[in-house]
Amino acid sequence: MPNTRLAAVGRFDLSGGHKQLARLEADRASLVPVSSHTVRIGLLGCGNVGSALVELIEEQHQDICELTGIDLVVKRIAVRDASKPRGASIDSELLTEDVYSVVAGDDIDLVVELVGGIQPAYEWVKTALENNTSVVTGNKALLAEHGRELFEIAANNQADLLFEAAVAGGIPLIRALQQSLRGEPVKRVMGIVNGTTNYMLSAMTESGAAYDEVLAKAQSLGYAEADPTADVEGLDAQAKAAIIATTAFGASIKASDVPAVGISSVTAEDISEAKRLGYVIKLLAVVERHGDQAPYQVAAGVHPTMVPLNHPLASVRGAFNAVFIEGGAVGELMLYGRGAGGRPTASAVLGDVIAVSRCLASATHVAQHRVADAHLAPAELDKSAWYLSVKVNDEPGVLAEVAGVFGKHGISIRSMEQTGLEREATLNFITHEAAQPDIERTILDLENVRTVTSIGSRYRVMANNGE
Amino acid sequence: MPNTRLAAVGRFDLSGGHKQLARLEADRASLVPVSSHTVRIGLLGCGNVGSALVELIEEQHQDICELTGIDLVVKRIAVRDASKPRGASIDSELLTEDVYSVVAGDDIDLVVELVGGIQPAYEWVKTALENNTSVVTGNKALLAEHGRELFEIAANNQADLLFEAAVAGGIPLIRALQQSLRGEPVKRVMGIVNGTTNYMLSAMTESGAAYDEVLAKAQSLGYAEADPTADVEGLDAQAKAAIIATTAFGASIKASDVPAVGISSVTAEDISEAKRLGYVIKLLAVVERHGDQAPYQVAAGVHPTMVPLNHPLASVRGAFNAVFIEGGAVGELMLYGRGAGGRPTASAVLGDVIAVSRCLASATHVAQHRVADAHLAPAELDKSAWYLSVKVNDEPGVLAEVAGVFGKHGISIRSMEQTGLEREATLNFITHEAAQPDIERTILDLENVRTVTSIGSRYRVMANNGE
Repeated sequence: MPNTRLAAVGRFDLSGGHKQLARLEADRASLVPVSSHTVRIGLLGCGNVGSALVELIEEQHQDICELTGIDLVVKRIAVRDASKPRGASIDSELLTEDVYSVVAGDDIDLVVELVGGIQPAYEWVKTALENNTSVVTGNKALLAEHGRELFEIAANNQADLLFEAAVAGGIPLIRALQQSLRGEPVKRVMGIVNGTTNYMLSAMTESGAAYDEVLAKAQSLGYAEADPTADVEGLDAQAKAAIIATTAFGASIKASDVPAVGISSVTAEDISEAKRLGYVIKLLAVVERHGDQAPYQVAAGVHPTMVPLNHPLASVRGAFNAVFIEGGAVGELMLYGRGAGGRPTASAVLGDVIAVSRCLASATHVAQHRVADAHLAPAELDKSAWYLSVKVNDEPGVLAEVAGVFGKHGISIRSMEQTGLEREATLNFITHEAAQPDIERTILDLENVRTVTSIGSRYRVMANNGE
Repeated sequence: MPNTRLAAVGRFDLSGGHKQLARLEADRASLVPVSSHTVRIGLLGCGNVGSALVELIEEQHQDICELTGIDLVVKRIAVRDASKPRGASIDSELLTEDVYSVVAGDDIDLVVELVGGIQPAYEWVKTALENNTSVVTGNKALLAEHGRELFEIAANNQADLLFEAAVAGGIPLIRALQQSLRGEPVKRVMGIVNGTTNYMLSAMTESGAAYDEVLAKAQSLGYAEADPTADVEGLDAQAKAAIIATTAFGASIKASDVPAVGISSVTAEDISEAKRLGYVIKLLAVVERHGDQAPYQVAAGVHPTMVPLNHPLASVRGAFNAVFIEGGAVGELMLYGRGAGGRPTASAVLGDVIAVSRCLASATHVAQHRVADAHLAPAELDKSAWYLSVKVNDEPGVLAEVAGVFGKHGISIRSMEQTGLEREATLNFITHEAAQPDIERTILDLENVRTVTSIGSRYRVMANNGE
C-alpha cells in the first residue's frame, strides 16, 4: 500500500530536460537530506540471499568504510510477513510489510530487490527507479523480460540499475562484460550458468548413474527443487542467456527469444558414449555475434553439448558455474565460481551496492551501456558440429543410404562408428559444422528411410581446441 | 623536453580544497576545450602492446561510440625514435619524440603509459597526474615500487590511475578485486601470473623434459627472453604479487617485500615425483590475509608449489594465466585467460581507457580504493604443508633419527616414502601444515644429522580440496 511519503515525493516528468532535472535534484535534496557518505539501503525480500546480504554488510561494514568511505546502513526490509521469525542477524525493527516505504521511502538511497519473479518485482523496481532511486537486483526473470524497459526508465530518471547477481551468482561476469571488455570484440560467450544441471550431469558422468537417480539425489540435497522444471528444462539458463546477450552485445533479447533444450532426455548411455569419444556433456548457454560491424546479428541458445575433455569448461564440476568468453583481442577468458547460494550471491549484490553507493557519494552514475534494437540471427547462422545417433536394421547398403541423406542436405560427416549388430545396430555420426535447419531437415528425412528404425540422441559438439 | 604548453597549464596546488578545485576546473576548461564525448589519448610507447592498442581502438571505434558515447582519438604517440618505420596501423603523423607534448599536452585528455620499467616512466606518469591528467598503465614494475605514491598523487590531483593490464594481462582481475569483490572478505589470492614459467613447467610436465631443454625451447618460441632471469627467478611474479596485495587488501607492499623463489631449480625428477603423488608443480604468487579485522596482516610470496591435480589451478597449461580467489562469502572464484601478448594486454588497457573516458565525459572519477599502511605478516604466520626430500644412508634407525628432527620443531608428518636403497636412499616427506621458520630450522638441523647426506628438493604443498 502506498504510504503518504510516496505522494510527497511524487513522480517527476523529465521530458523537459535539464531544467526539470535541476528542479528534481533540488526537490530531492530537500526531501532526502543524506550525509555524503552514508547510504541507506531498502531491501525487498529477506530470504536466503537477503539475509546473507544483511549479515555480510554487518561483517564487512568497517572494512568497506575504511576502503571506500561508504557507510552502509540497512534501513528497512520489506517482507510478506513481518511477524515471521527470522535469523538472529535480522533486526526485527527493520522489517515492514509496507513495500512502498522501501521503494518510495524518502529515507532510502538505494533499493536492493531480492524477491525474484516478474510480478510484483517489476512494479516495485519501476517505482523505485521512477523515484530516482537506484536499484540493485539479482532477478534474472525480471531482467530477461523487462530489462530494456527498466534500463531506459533508469537512464531517464538519473538512477542506476545493477544486476551482477542475476547471472552466475558470485562470478563477476556482468562487470567484466560491461567494463573490462567494453572495447573488446567479443565473439562468443559460452556458460555453464545453472548449478543444478551441472551438478546432475557431473554426478551422471562420475558415477554412471541414470538421470532419475541423480535428480532424486539433487532434490534430497536441496540442489534441485521439488518441481525441477526451470532448471532441468533449461529455462533458468534461457533467461541468463538473454541477459548475457544484452550485456555483451547490447542486443535487446528476451528469454522467449532464446531456444532452449534442457537435460531431461540425457541418458547414462549418452554420457558414457560421449566419454568414450573424448567428450563430456554440459548444458551450455551460448551467445554469439555474427558479422563484423554493429548492429550485429546475435544468436543465443541453451543446449546440452558435447564438450571436449581438454576444454576448460569440461573440468567445471558439481554445482560450480563458469563462463567462457572468446574475444577477438583478449583471446580465451574463463570466469569460474559459485553460481548460486546465499553468501556467494550476496557477495555479488554487495559489489553492486558499493558501486552504486560510490556514485551516490560523488553525485554521479554508474556508466550503463546502451541497449540497441534486437537483431536475432536467423537459424541458418546457427552452425555447429553435431553428434547424431541413428538406429538401423543392419543390412547391406544401409550406411550408404543414411549417408546419402546427410549428403543431400550438404552435411559433411567427420566420423561414424557402428555399435551393436543387426536389428540392434546404431550408427553414431559426428558431422562437420552444419547449419541448424539442415540438421533438422536431415533428421526429418532420416525418419523416412526404410532401414532407419529411429533417431536416437542428438547433441551439438564443441570443436576441439585448435580445430 | 618540456614544451611551452606545460608552462601554460602549470601545476595546481589543490591543498586549498574545493575553491581551488573549482578554479582548476575553470582554468582547465578554458585551456582544454573538449567536446564532452571526445577523449584524446596521448600514448607513451609504441611497441607490441602500444601498436595493438592503436589497432584495437581503430577496429572498435564505432562499437565503442555506439555503446558508450565515447569517441576515442589517439592524438599523439611519444616514441624514442619517431623516424623508425612502424606497422601500417600507425599514422606517422602522430609520432613524436617530445614526451612532454603527451604527458603535459593541453590537447591530451588521457595518457596511456606502455613504456615499462621504473624510470623514466615514473617521472612521466607523475607529470601527467600532476597536470590533472588521468593515466592508464600496464607497468607492473612501476606500480610495485611507486604505486602508493602515485595513487596519492592521482587522488590529490583529481586524476585517475588505472592498471588492469599490469597483472595477468587480459584477465579482468584488478577490476574484480577493486569493484566486484570490494565488499567481499577475501582470504587468499593465488595466481599463476607468469606465462613463461607456466609454459615451461607445463612442457616439463607433459614431455618429461629437463629444465634447460624447455628453457631453450621457450626462448626459441619467443616465450622467454635471452636473459630469462625476471621470469624464471620469479621477479615478474613478485611485482604482480605486490600489486595484488595492494589491490585486494589495501596494503602498501612493494616488490622487495615479497619473498620470491623461481623455478630454475625445479628438476624433471621433482615433476615426475610430484605427478606420482597426485600433484603438478606450478609457480604461484600467493597473497593472504591474516586476522579478521582491518588493519590486516598480509603475507605475500612467490614459490613453486605442488598443486593437487584436482585443483582448478592444476589444469592451467601453457602460457595461460589464472588467478584463484578464496573469499569468505563468494567461496572459490577463478579467472583464467591470456596473461601476456599484444592484443590481450591491449584489450585490458582499452577497458581502462573506456572507464576513464566515461568519467571524463561525466566530469567524475573512477572510485579508487584507499591504500593503508603496510602490515606485513611475520613469517610465523606463513603456514603450509611441505614436501621435503632427504637423502640418507639407509641404516637401522635412520628414519627415527630424521623423524625426531621434525618432531623437535613441532612439525607433524603426513606421509613418508622411501625411494632407493642404502647409500642411494631418499626419504620423501609430506608434512602437515607448518610455519615457514620451523621448516627452515628443521632443514638446518637435518643437515647436521650424521646419516643425512644432503637435503634435496623442497616444495610447498597446496591442501587437497576439502582438507
